[in-house]
Order: sequence, then C-alpha cells, then structure tokens
Amino acid sequence: MRRVIGFDPGYGRLGFGVLDIVKGNPVYVGCGVLTTPAGADPSMRLLEIVRDVRVLLEKYQPKELAIESLFFGKSSTTALRVAEVRGVLLYLAAEQGIPVIEVKPVEIKIALTGYGKAKKPEMQQMITRVLHLKSVPEPDDAADALAIAWTGAGKLIL
Amino acid sequence: MRRVIGFDPGYGRLGFGVLDIVKGNPVYVGCGVLTTPAGADPSMRLLEIVRDVRVLLEKYQPKELAIESLFFGKSSTTALRVAEVRGVLLYLAAEQGIPVIEVKPVEIKIALTGYGKAKKPEMQQMITRVLHLKSVPEPDDAADALAIAWTGAGKLIL
Repeated sequence: MRRVIGFDPGYGRLGFGVLDIVKGNPVYVGCGVLTTPAGADPSMRLLEIVRDVRVLLEKYQPKELAIESLFFGKSSTTALRVAEVRGVLLYLAAEQGIPVIEVKPVEIKIALTGYGKAKKPEMQQMITRVLHLKSVPEPDDAADALAIAWTGAGKLIL
Repeated sequence: MRRVIGFDPGYGRLGFGVLDIVKGNPVYVGCGVLTTPAGADPSMRLLEIVRDVRVLLEKYQPKELAIESLFFGKSSTTALRVAEVRGVLLYLAAEQGIPVIEVKPVEIKIALTGYGKAKKPEMQQMITRVLHLKSVPEPDDAADALAIAWTGAGKLIL
C-alpha cells in the first residue's frame, strides 16, 4: 500500500488530502485544512504551518507528497505568497524523506474529468464521485488537495 | 550591540551579509554566498539551504534578519522560485526567534545612494564605501545582501 498526501498551499488555508493506493486504486483516507490567522506576521505563520504539517506527516505517514507545479502566468503577490508556503512544504518533504510528485493544473483537470479546461464545480463533483464520498469535501482547499493527491496517485499507478 | 543579517535569496546562490550596529553605525562583520547544485531536486536543495542557514545563524547569532519585501511586478517563474527560498528563510527566522525587517527595493537604493533609481554598479560602490571595504564584495549576491542588511540596520537606528 502506498499513501499519498496532496497539498494545496496557502497562508490562510492550507488544504490537505490523503489517499491510499489499494490494489491499483486510490482510496480516500482523510482531508482537511490548516489555517493561520490573517493578521499575524508571515514569519510566525510559516512557523505555525511547519509545526502543523509535521504533525500531519507524523499522523498519516505518507510515502509520497503531491503538489501543484509552479506555473508562470499566475504570478502576482498572491502567487508569490503561495510560493513561500510551497517552499516550506518542499523543505519538509525532503526533511522527512518523502519524494515530491509535481502535478500541473492541466494534469489535475484531465486526470479527473478528461478535459483540460474543466471548471471548479465539475472538478469538485468528480473528486467526490471517484472517491465515493457522500458529499463534496469542504472547504474547497481540502477538495483541491484531494484532486492533487488523486492526480499524483495516478502518476504512481501508471 | 545589535547584529543584523541580510539575505538575498535564491536556489543557486543565496547571498548573506552581516553587520553590527556599533554606537549607531553599521560595521561590517562578514558576507558570503550559499550555493546548491543547479540540477538537484528543489526539495533537496531547500533542505540543504535550511541546514546551511541554521549553521550561519548559529555562527553569527544575529538579533534581526533583513530581507527584501515581496513586490508585485517582478513576478515570473524565477520570482516564484525566489519566493520559495524566502519562505524557508522566514520560517527559520521565526524558529530561531529572530524578528524580520522587510525592506523594499526602493528603500535599499535610497538608503545607500539617496536616489530611488540607482543602478547596480552605483549600489555596489556605495556599499563598499560606507562599510570601508577594500573592494566590492563578491559575488553580487553577497554585496546585495550587505545592502539589504545596511538598509535594515538603518531602520533600527532611525
């Protein structure tokens, strides 16, 4: 059994989703979101994120970590902030000896819907369906992280 | 005496510069550059950076950490990569209990030359002169980090 954790990074909400690959199929394990307070110092928020993610990695013991690739075009102050959080996640993966699977946004859309321009509601419906969940995972960041984990798991299965 | 370390982040070359504030004046302590191999995995490079920066912080015991602010406009794949390294530096500052001083690029230019549109060669000449160094610090990343530390120190003195 291989366990994959997917992350959708952000300062305010950091989504995570965990899947096991059982007999070649991804099976839902858990998902959720880590938060840090908006007004706090970025440096202190990153410390909190590192501590919380270490707890998650300890709890779930993933064998692989999936994350979206950096992509040019989404560059803005927000994207630069997201990249800071991405940096600490990549560092933590190496610290814990967990290989990183990078997935492109278009790969996530295709993995879930077969269509590279799928919209968010379709993606959320599909991740719910393929993982046999009773309802769409909330918040969005958790559903997005599951979609990232699903796509990463698909690369391992292929 | 207050000691300030300035960082100019990057994967390939991470510049650092260290100053002491002695009787209200910044005095040169040291500078240099940390490197990681270009071909290596970003995750492993960040692990190496974290380890090397921890050694630097242990060696120099700075009381403040100066770094350039994020700024919109420089957004590109390179800027996103720089932001990943910036993220681990901000995390390390909080981990070690070191306050972060953010300095804007224009503040660095004004602090050193009095002119917000100063070019790189002017900046390098000025940091050499104000710190009474015999030659321009090399590589550029080390000189840039000293300029960042100088500007951060100036904010503490004011």
